[in-house]
Amino acid sequence: MNSFGRLFRVNVFGESHGASVGVNIDGIPAGIPLTQEDFLPDLERRKAGAKGTTPRKEEDLPFIKSGVFNDHTTGAPITILFENNNTRSTDYEKLREFPRPGHADFVATHKYGGFEDYRGGGHFSGRLTLNLVAAGVIAKKILGPGISVKATLKEVAGLPDAEQGLEAAIAAKDSVGGIVECVVEGLPIGLGEPFFDSVESTIAHAVFSIPAIKGIEFGAGFAAARMKGVEHNDAILDASGKTATNHAGGVVGGITNGNPLVFRVAVKPTSSTPKEQHTLNIKSGEVENFSVKGRHDLCIALRVPVVLEAVAAMALADFMLLEQRSNRVFKN
Amino acid sequence: MNSFGRLFRVNVFGESHGASVGVNIDGIPAGIPLTQEDFLPDLERRKAGAKGTTPRKEEDLPFIKSGVFNDHTTGAPITILFENNNTRSTDYEKLREFPRPGHADFVATHKYGGFEDYRGGGHFSGRLTLNLVAAGVIAKKILGPGISVKATLKEVAGLPDAEQGLEAAIAAKDSVGGIVECVVEGLPIGLGEPFFDSVESTIAHAVFSIPAIKGIEFGAGFAAARMKGVEHNDAILDASGKTATNHAGGVVGGITNGNPLVFRVAVKPTSSTPKEQHTLNIKSGEVENFSVKGRHDLCIALRVPVVLEAVAAMALADFMLLEQRSNRVFKN
Amino acid sequence: MNSFGRLFRVNVFGESHGASVGVNIDGIPAGIPLTQEDFLPDLERRKAGAKGTTPRKEEDLPFIKSGVFNDHTTGAPITILFENNNTRSTDYEKLREFPRPGHADFVATHKYGGFEDYRGGGHFSGRLTLNLVAAGVIAKKILGPGISVKATLKEVAGLPDAEQGLEAAIAAKDSVGGIVECVVEGLPIGLGEPFFDSVESTIAHAVFSIPAIKGIEFGAGFAAARMKGVEHNDAILDASGKTATNHAGGVVGGITNGNPLVFRVAVKPTSSTPKEQHTLNIKSGEVENFSVKGRHDLCIALRVPVVLEAVAAMALADFMLLEQRSNRVFKN
Amino acid sequence: MNSFGRLFRVNVFGESHGASVGVNIDGIPAGIPLTQEDFLPDLERRKAGAKGTTPRKEEDLPFIKSGVFNDHTTGAPITILFENNNTRSTDYEKLREFPRPGHADFVATHKYGGFEDYRGGGHFSGRLTLNLVAAGVIAKKILGPGISVKATLKEVAGLPDAEQGLEAAIAAKDSVGGIVECVVEGLPIGLGEPFFDSVESTIAHAVFSIPAIKGIEFGAGFAAARMKGVEHNDAILDASGKTATNHAGGVVGGITNGNPLVFRVAVKPTSSTPKEQHTLNIKSGEVENFSVKGRHDLCIALRVPVVLEAVAAMALADFMLLEQRSNRVFKN
Repeated sequence: MNSFGRLFRVNVFGESHGASVGVNIDGIPAGIPLTQEDFLPDLERRKAGAKGTTPRKEEDLPFIKSGVFNDHTTGAPITILFENNNTRSTDYEKLREFPRPGHADFVATHKYGGFEDYRGGGHFSGRLTLNLVAAGVIAKKILGPGISVKATLKEVAGLPDAEQGLEAAIAAKDSVGGIVECVVEGLPIGLGEPFFDSVESTIAHAVFSIPAIKGIEFGAGFAAARMKGVEHNDAILDASGKTATNHAGGVVGGITNGNPLVFRVAVKPTSSTPKEQHTLNIKSGEVENFSVKGRHDLCIALRVPVVLEAVAAMALADFMLLEQRSNRVFKN
Repeated sequence: MNSFGRLFRVNVFGESHGASVGVNIDGIPAGIPLTQEDFLPDLERRKAGAKGTTPRKEEDLPFIKSGVFNDHTTGAPITILFENNNTRSTDYEKLREFPRPGHADFVATHKYGGFEDYRGGGHFSGRLTLNLVAAGVIAKKILGPGISVKATLKEVAGLPDAEQGLEAAIAAKDSVGGIVECVVEGLPIGLGEPFFDSVESTIAHAVFSIPAIKGIEFGAGFAAARMKGVEHNDAILDASGKTATNHAGGVVGGITNGNPLVFRVAVKPTSSTPKEQHTLNIKSGEVENFSVKGRHDLCIALRVPVVLEAVAAMALADFMLLEQRSNRVFKN
Repeated sequence: MNSFGRLFRVNVFGESHGASVGVNIDGIPAGIPLTQEDFLPDLERRKAGAKGTTPRKEEDLPFIKSGVFNDHTTGAPITILFENNNTRSTDYEKLREFPRPGHADFVATHKYGGFEDYRGGGHFSGRLTLNLVAAGVIAKKILGPGISVKATLKEVAGLPDAEQGLEAAIAAKDSVGGIVECVVEGLPIGLGEPFFDSVESTIAHAVFSIPAIKGIEFGAGFAAARMKGVEHNDAILDASGKTATNHAGGVVGGITNGNPLVFRVAVKPTSSTPKEQHTLNIKSGEVENFSVKGRHDLCIALRVPVVLEAVAAMALADFMLLEQRSNRVFKN
Repeated sequence: MNSFGRLFRVNVFGESHGASVGVNIDGIPAGIPLTQEDFLPDLERRKAGAKGTTPRKEEDLPFIKSGVFNDHTTGAPITILFENNNTRSTDYEKLREFPRPGHADFVATHKYGGFEDYRGGGHFSGRLTLNLVAAGVIAKKILGPGISVKATLKEVAGLPDAEQGLEAAIAAKDSVGGIVECVVEGLPIGLGEPFFDSVESTIAHAVFSIPAIKGIEFGAGFAAARMKGVEHNDAILDASGKTATNHAGGVVGGITNGNPLVFRVAVKPTSSTPKEQHTLNIKSGEVENFSVKGRHDLCIALRVPVVLEAVAAMALADFMLLEQRSNRVFKN
């Protein structure tokens, strides 16, 4: 349940205010150069501190606990640990009477009988996306320099300029959502598996593990529903599979066709809005006014691009390993 | 790769013009009443013949080859076979020089070295959705009468009235797409698994196995990206988890919250449009005019609702079996 | 549960007296020559009719229902069906009062609440080993001509000469057991995966799916427990990994070392002995005399060699596909 | 590959002389009391120090890094880390020219291209059985107090008295093997899954992950191959499934029958014998004399019982969770 992938197998663990968060990855080929420093640029991109993100200073140092020797992967599972040092749990203890709207508080208590670590969202915390970013760094190495995975903010608060969208949120003193687009270039033709493990199925599976994502579309996506067939079909131009348009977003029949893989995701507004809300007080049984304490990102979408790249890279690295079995087509 | 699910495990097989298509399902509890007749209503809904679908008369009789005894499931795997009788392969042999735009022809040849069964899309054919519908019938039985899974056409060719949308397509002599919405009522709180197997991840995974789906959104979906936090958050009203609004679409933190599960999918226009297209002739190496022969659905979205229900039921039945372990919370 | 393998994925189904038994296999590379005739020699070896096996004439024709086109595998899942024609269920209906000792009758009723197909062992019947033999034929093709998998009877009824062992059983009018050894030559160095998917773990897993197997040992096996270290260790002789002795049976650290893979299994005497037994009558609640009706193999071990080869080939084919990924060691 | 189990899912990682060894376990029910102290008794049983085991003082403190809150499991994955402090890697660097007979050195270099962590066996080290013992402690809690898992030494160096066997080894200045038996009492009827996931298949799979195991047998095991049918069959005595004898070792048709589960394993002599050996020098290409430096267990079988209990408990806990789904037999 906390794992993803067939050959590049990612297991995440940890809680926001527990001892640590971390990730265990099996199936990594031996011989990939890897050091702690390799993780820092993408972890930095995810970090808090930008306008509209929380000023809480997180300790994000990734410690490699297994699977690396002489700065190269060994073929054994890699475990990366992020210790949690900067946590103030007392902030959270008193919040239990209000299961925060938009958060997992209510469902987690129901599912785990009250034994869940409820501090700061516990296992449901956005802090676990550290694990995804770390796994993504390794996945990108498997994809190699010929394949680029690049996600960008397309919209914040409905505005194409993220800066303006954020200003709108600050002015409204409310959280806002956004749209992030990911483009992968350089993929070979043939990734993806019928029937259930299409590229779309697998990418979507990975993407919806990121908190706050509520929709995904490939290529023309929802707009395709209003197009005509001749308009939507991408004419093939040559033997490399290059198409005149890319309404399919690089995937046909669930399999990459050699054109850029393109998808977009919808990110909901941060659940922890500074605005006062009206919701159930579990203890009193009454609907009451409630405010989230502490400082939170106004727009979680700002942190999504590097995480989106990471999960896309994870899914694609798994397909690459699967495809590189030398006998997709039998030779003996 | 051709399988889905952890405890309710579905394996599909078959080709459009091969001996058969079929589905093997493991993990079905013993004692569920099941006969051939139980499959017919949903298979009928999927069938060709309505306006805008192909008049090709398909033989859709499901033969139960294992796992049922005295009209009840036995606990052993069930295999259901649909024999292919009404196939005219010669129609397809000559088409190979044009890999059909929007279809898997080009990528399949690339991936399988030309050994793929290319007749009528082969293993990539929409005919394999028969298997999904059959699996869905059993999945719905596992969900039981208290849970309803209902999908409806919301839009055809951009028009809310499917009939009008279809008329538009016929008038334009081109294929069209559509939007289908699925609503599931009666689900318990607590289905879905962190971190990777959220309800959204699992439903999306299943849904993108249906040919022609290019996007999915839950609850407010893409519209959520333009909402403010206070506007989007669903206030909890009482201890049952009922919320004032349902922008989350019944899923918070990846887990069902007791409200209706709501999601929508975008269906692209049928790739086999009657309109002439401009695409690569593999033999000549030139871009040429090309027309799809035979009769095809003008709007594949018309057949999607029953298939969408089926895959949603499959995903949810798997969660139900997982949750019904008596010790999600330990008792000893 | 009814599936085995990671990349060469075998799903078995069927009941002894139901409509059919069969096997669905996913992950087979495209382009392997395959026809119905390819299955017949191994199916013939498994067949009833030899001295000491039941004279019941079984219909063992394998029908390929998917995944093969123009006499080659397509890369899509292959389903092979054996129809059950020669069954007389009435023989079994009245037996229900005596859960047959050594058979699954008692545990199956308990586990499946009486809904199991109890006729002739149902899903637990030895007839399902047809599926294994069929899967083994394909697995052997993946291994290729350079790898030979050969199982032989080493002992029947405690006698090294199978013929004499069988005569002893006939004379005693009781069923007998045996020992079967399997030797695989030509394997590359490096098959097998730490930590849990060692060659021994995976072969043993597959082997214990064969009914009547009660033990397995690799190389020196149980005798190793009485050897000294210097005596047991196999000295490496050259860079090819060839060892002076083969007490390890070709596996060190769970990984093939380039020497022949050798293992032996213990087969219990056929549970359906012609001798009268003393056991519980479920209806009366009394321990009573009981005799198995019908004709059964006196020594099931006679049929085991071809089945043992099949499951070994399945396990090894899976490892071969896993290993043939070009980047076990990373190159980019 | 480094994972085991379907619902109780164990992932091991680490190297003998790397930063740590550890285990990540998913699928643990919430609400199980668990503290560091709970692990100590079984870890103590595994520890070095007894006569015939190495005097190297290992740091075996298990640190719980996730999944426990307020001394109870939370339902989220548990990660347990053992830091490696007491390692002297320089002992091992110069050994590379002799791939140690009986060890994974040769195959690991071949498989991982020389990138493996070769110090002290690296990922293949017996130190990783710490992870199994830790997982076993949690598994035993899931089994509960009504089920006892107990393994004992039956034979060392061919002698039924372990003390005498060990004296023989010390006298001979060579390592020796042994036989360990495991008995599980209190299991319900019905654990185990046809076709491939029989109790024997699953236990054997787990057991062969323990280094040095070369054989396993259930109930009468290899002796069954020399028994007659009437002699071997266990007569059922009453409706609880109690049998007069237990030659089946508590498993029929791959499923527990309510009698004690009994199996025995063969443990080879420790590969690192103090005796001089004759084997290949990789650098010189010559067969030369070679001695393992350092102090090692003379009889690794002495440490096996607690590890054997652990893997048996892991396999059985997984079956228990699978069975406790309330609708093995359907109710709605």
